[in-house]
Amino acid sequence: MKAFEFLDKVKIDDVNTMVLDKGLGYKFIEDSLKINGDYFNFLKYGWGTSMLYDKEIIQDKNELYHSYNIRTYPGGTLLELANSQNKVAEFLEEADNLGFNAIEISDGSSIIDSQKRAQLIDQVKDAGYFTLTEIGKKNPEKDHEYSIKDRIQLINTDIENKSDMVIIEGRESGKNIGIYDEKGNIKNDDLLAIKENTPNNKIMWEAPNKNQQVELILKLGNNVNLGNISFDEIISVTTLRKGLRGDTFLKL
Amino acid sequence: MKAFEFLDKVKIDDVNTMVLDKGLGYKFIEDSLKINGDYFNFLKYGWGTSMLYDKEIIQDKNELYHSYNIRTYPGGTLLELANSQNKVAEFLEEADNLGFNAIEISDGSSIIDSQKRAQLIDQVKDAGYFTLTEIGKKNPEKDHEYSIKDRIQLINTDIENKSDMVIIEGRESGKNIGIYDEKGNIKNDDLLAIKENTPNNKIMWEAPNKNQQVELILKLGNNVNLGNISFDEIISVTTLRKGLRGDTFLKL
Amino acid sequence: MKAFEFLDKVKIDDVNTMVLDKGLGYKFIEDSLKINGDYFNFLKYGWGTSMLYDKEIIQDKNELYHSYNIRTYPGGTLLELANSQNKVAEFLEEADNLGFNAIEISDGSSIIDSQKRAQLIDQVKDAGYFTLTEIGKKNPEKDHEYSIKDRIQLINTDIENKSDMVIIEGRESGKNIGIYDEKGNIKNDDLLAIKENTPNNKIMWEAPNKNQQVELILKLGNNVNLGNISFDEIISVTTLRKGLRGDTFLKL
Repeated sequence: MKAFEFLDKVKIDDVNTMVLDKGLGYKFIEDSLKINGDYFNFLKYGWGTSMLYDKEIIQDKNELYHSYNIRTYPGGTLLELANSQNKVAEFLEEADNLGFNAIEISDGSSIIDSQKRAQLIDQVKDAGYFTLTEIGKKNPEKDHEYSIKDRIQLINTDIENKSDMVIIEGRESGKNIGIYDEKGNIKNDDLLAIKENTPNNKIMWEAPNKNQQVELILKLGNNVNLGNISFDEIISVTTLRKGLRGDTFLKL
Repeated sequence: MKAFEFLDKVKIDDVNTMVLDKGLGYKFIEDSLKINGDYFNFLKYGWGTSMLYDKEIIQDKNELYHSYNIRTYPGGTLLELANSQNKVAEFLEEADNLGFNAIEISDGSSIIDSQKRAQLIDQVKDAGYFTLTEIGKKNPEKDHEYSIKDRIQLINTDIENKSDMVIIEGRESGKNIGIYDEKGNIKNDDLLAIKENTPNNKIMWEAPNKNQQVELILKLGNNVNLGNISFDEIISVTTLRKGLRGDTFLKL
Repeated sequence: MKAFEFLDKVKIDDVNTMVLDKGLGYKFIEDSLKINGDYFNFLKYGWGTSMLYDKEIIQDKNELYHSYNIRTYPGGTLLELANSQNKVAEFLEEADNLGFNAIEISDGSSIIDSQKRAQLIDQVKDAGYFTLTEIGKKNPEKDHEYSIKDRIQLINTDIENKSDMVIIEGRESGKNIGIYDEKGNIKNDDLLAIKENTPNNKIMWEAPNKNQQVELILKLGNNVNLGNISFDEIISVTTLRKGLRGDTFLKL
């Protein structure tokens, strides 16, 4: 039973929260999930970190996360590496052996044309994975080449192509990328344009910084899908969603 | 026996250090306290985080902290929530059941008039808790409405009303709030005004950032009461207090 | 066996990575090393933190780190404290009892003339330690008094005096110190001057921030020696070295 249950609180409908794991130990995770395991449902092994671990460790970690109904996937960069080496099929088989049950398709670090992207979505879905696609370039200069119209079109194309969830790139820093300016503030016009022209429940916003989480919750609702949450901020983000922190207290 | 005991070192008199817990696991805390458990004596479950945990977890964590003589309390935001729902009595009873032995009274997120505030202090003290009160608003615009005179008067009123310790709000960010400017630097005039017009040993400064800890130690003494210390900075802050880090080395 | 072994990847030659421990618990380290223990080989107990621990804890932690072939040493500040009290011999004996197998000689917080510095290097080496020396002052104003020529001369003098590795001070913040400007960006001319006039394999760059790690890897090679890496960034830094993150993907 939760503490202070007699207090009225804000409810959250279906919500997706994606957390970044960049090298956590098994026992640390096991211990932490007793506290935060009910408050997120996607776990990303950041970028290419999975390649540095022993297979057994990944298998054990995946099993542990799944026991809390948390989907796990390797970072999109790793699929890009496999794709650049024409080894996507082997990649998907290995990911399955390791116990991953979702896959992210991105082109943040390499060039993948729209036809190939659509084919990758098919291939990943056919292999039985929950399929996330990501919009955005890791390099800010390249990322800035997208107009907001481009982004909206890319999102909607991915959804037409049956991507289960489309992630808006925010990186770990949340600065100078996607809808964030150099200081990490949200570009409001871009946010609204995406909101009005895409199916919001299919969009996940990478929002590593607190000001971004607060603003997205206040503007898009407390069940906005948020990603790239750092592992030690899972509880904090949930308090923001539930109006249990000053920034959203009595504002939801 | 401590290491390198033959080296002369700076002593610290009675000192209070308050640390922020925003979702730490039981075993992680147990393991860490063997390293840092002697170096802090207040632990705050930040804002409304306590509501997200199972009762048993809080009870176990509180017991663990108490075994190191560390007082524990839920964030002031939670009492504000209870107060806004007219459930302060239930709140205090539940907090006792959960093993908390201190309570913070704040009005950072809601409006509580001075009469009600005084009554809350009475009520919390009567229930047997160590009683902390906090001065400051979570919202920077509202916080800036206080003149330094206002703050000093609020502090001294709380102390007259028997608050055991008065906290100067600094939030987790330490920026654009209380005595901190937008960059997190200390507003010197404000610091000195508070220092000269209040009983310093009853004041706890929330000082989440290192530059703030350094300056407060150099200006108010190494036994200045510091709060909102992040869990992984407990040892660092203690080295600053003892002149074991460059910033305060041979300066105390 | 590592995951995704069938993917071609960038190789790293001999490389040194130094990580900062500012108060980690034994079990947390034990758990983490299964993930990151192969990816760093120096561990520094920051500044004077070692003085705050029980001897047994340090002995146990040192043994644990050594089991992964990681050299351990107390921060240079502690040797400066011992030197200021004329207790270097006792310091070295205690460090040996505690299981440290490397020692850092710095003058970041105190004044040590060049003759004394040379003598300390001799003394530390004679005692059997791997010997690191550090160039730079903790106080930015004092640090800025060094010209780049001064720094290069200090580095080369240390190497002539048989220092095993020379560290370029970057502090934990990486700002306004050494080769970093106030925003933490690298001063390119200074970097190149040091690169061209010193033996690079003997230089370790303290580079706590990601932009610094990326730039040093791209400019000096993926086997550049990096220091002051935070414990939870060990895997991240390794992915940068191996081209497994957007910033260095296909650029090495």
